Amino acid sequence: MLSLLVENIYLLVVVTLISVLQNVFFAQKVERECKNRNTSGSAFQRVSCANRNCMDAYPTFLAVMWCAGVCLSQAPAAFAGIIYLLVRQKYFIGYLGQSSQSTPGYLFGKRIISFLSLMCIVGIFNYLLWRFYGSDYKEYVETITNAASALLLLP
Amino acid sequence: MLSLLVENIYLLVVVTLISVLQNVFFAQKVERECKNRNTSGSAFQRVSCANRNCMDAYPTFLAVMWCAGVCLSQAPAAFAGIIYLLVRQKYFIGYLGQSSQSTPGYLFGKRIISFLSLMCIVGIFNYLLWRFYGSDYKEYVETITNAASALLLLP
Amino acid sequence: MLSLLVENIYLLVVVTLISVLQNVFFAQKVERECKNRNTSGSAFQRVSCANRNCMDAYPTFLAVMWCAGVCLSQAPAAFAGIIYLLVRQKYFIGYLGQSSQSTPGYLFGKRIISFLSLMCIVGIFNYLLWRFYGSDYKEYVETITNAASALLLLP
Repeated sequence: MLSLLVENIYLLVVVTLISVLQNVFFAQKVERECKNRNTSGSAFQRVSCANRNCMDAYPTFLAVMWCAGVCLSQAPAAFAGIIYLLVRQKYFIGYLGQSSQSTPGYLFGKRIISFLSLMCIVGIFNYLLWRFYGSDYKEYVETITNAASALLLLP
Repeated sequence: MLSLLVENIYLLVVVTLISVLQNVFFAQKVERECKNRNTSGSAFQRVSCANRNCMDAYPTFLAVMWCAGVCLSQAPAAFAGIIYLLVRQKYFIGYLGQSSQSTPGYLFGKRIISFLSLMCIVGIFNYLLWRFYGSDYKEYVETITNAASALLLLP
Repeated sequence: MLSLLVENIYLLVVVTLISVLQNVFFAQKVERECKNRNTSGSAFQRVSCANRNCMDAYPTFLAVMWCAGVCLSQAPAAFAGIIYLLVRQKYFIGYLGQSSQSTPGYLFGKRIISFLSLMCIVGIFNYLLWRFYGSDYKEYVETITNAASALLLLP
């Protein structure tokens, strides 16, 4: 029975694993900077702050990605997850290199979180339609979602 | 096969989405305060602290709500989740308005977390009873849980 | 239908509940220290820092434990989870007792996270083998994983 479940979530698991790897990479950056703290206090502060902002947003991202993947379909959710990880990587690197006057903002990846939330809402709406009216538009919706996920690639 | 799963979790997904919206609202408050940092340092510190306390407790809340919803039944778990979000909103607003001498404590929503944990324990206990003795009290337990969740409304 | 699901995850739910209890214990430590802040500022800072490091790693741990448990089998994943909680307890206590010169590092439990990630990868690989070649090595893999999880007990 779990095999049937794994079939529908394995892409999400892969993205989760990649995000865990990225978390460990961030944490190691912090640890390395923490040991060199005496040399440059502001560098440590920047790494620590970048890591904290990423970690604050991490449970939100995970929750919304899994909900979208389970409610609608896994492929576009996993694709959006990959894009989010790239954005996060860029945010982290950008945070380190910048001087303190022009640090990037606190929020990032708003567009991707919105897209995933929309996927959740569409999925639940589709389920309710199917339950109360018997009409199932899942295939059309999945096709549209797959196409729409490509829009996330726009800069 | 996923439709069967969605039937049992869609209320939880809705609560998760609302909590994500709330997180974004909190983060935007922090970001706006961060840009006005020069005007009032203590206001930024209060918003940032309130947001951090909420974010620290967020994965715990999500985990226990989903476990309770999957192990026992989704309606009371989602109801408790909604109450928790209201408590959190009140905590966040209360944190901002107060002077620093009388900030609310670090912990909040202890009663709701306890209720959800109890639901998990009852659900697992019920499953073990069903597996080893063949007696299924699930319907009675769900009725009692639905009634007990109303107690969370007490101030 | 949910009963079938609960059968495959109830150990994970138990470990999650224990981790929630531990989180509450940590948070209460912070709250108690916060009220005595005037007596010793550095003790408060140490408790707060230990709690924050634990909380930063918590979503990562939960995500990888649940993925490993769902993709492969729950018993070794739950066992690794228990070990992780013990390591975390030791880390927290160690953080409090130490003087600031020799605090433990930022990262902990790297071996357990690696083990759980490996379990995920093996589970997905096994699923893909089963899907495309029809060969199911799940039982062999589970036996090997059960044996390998004992290696986590090595100091």
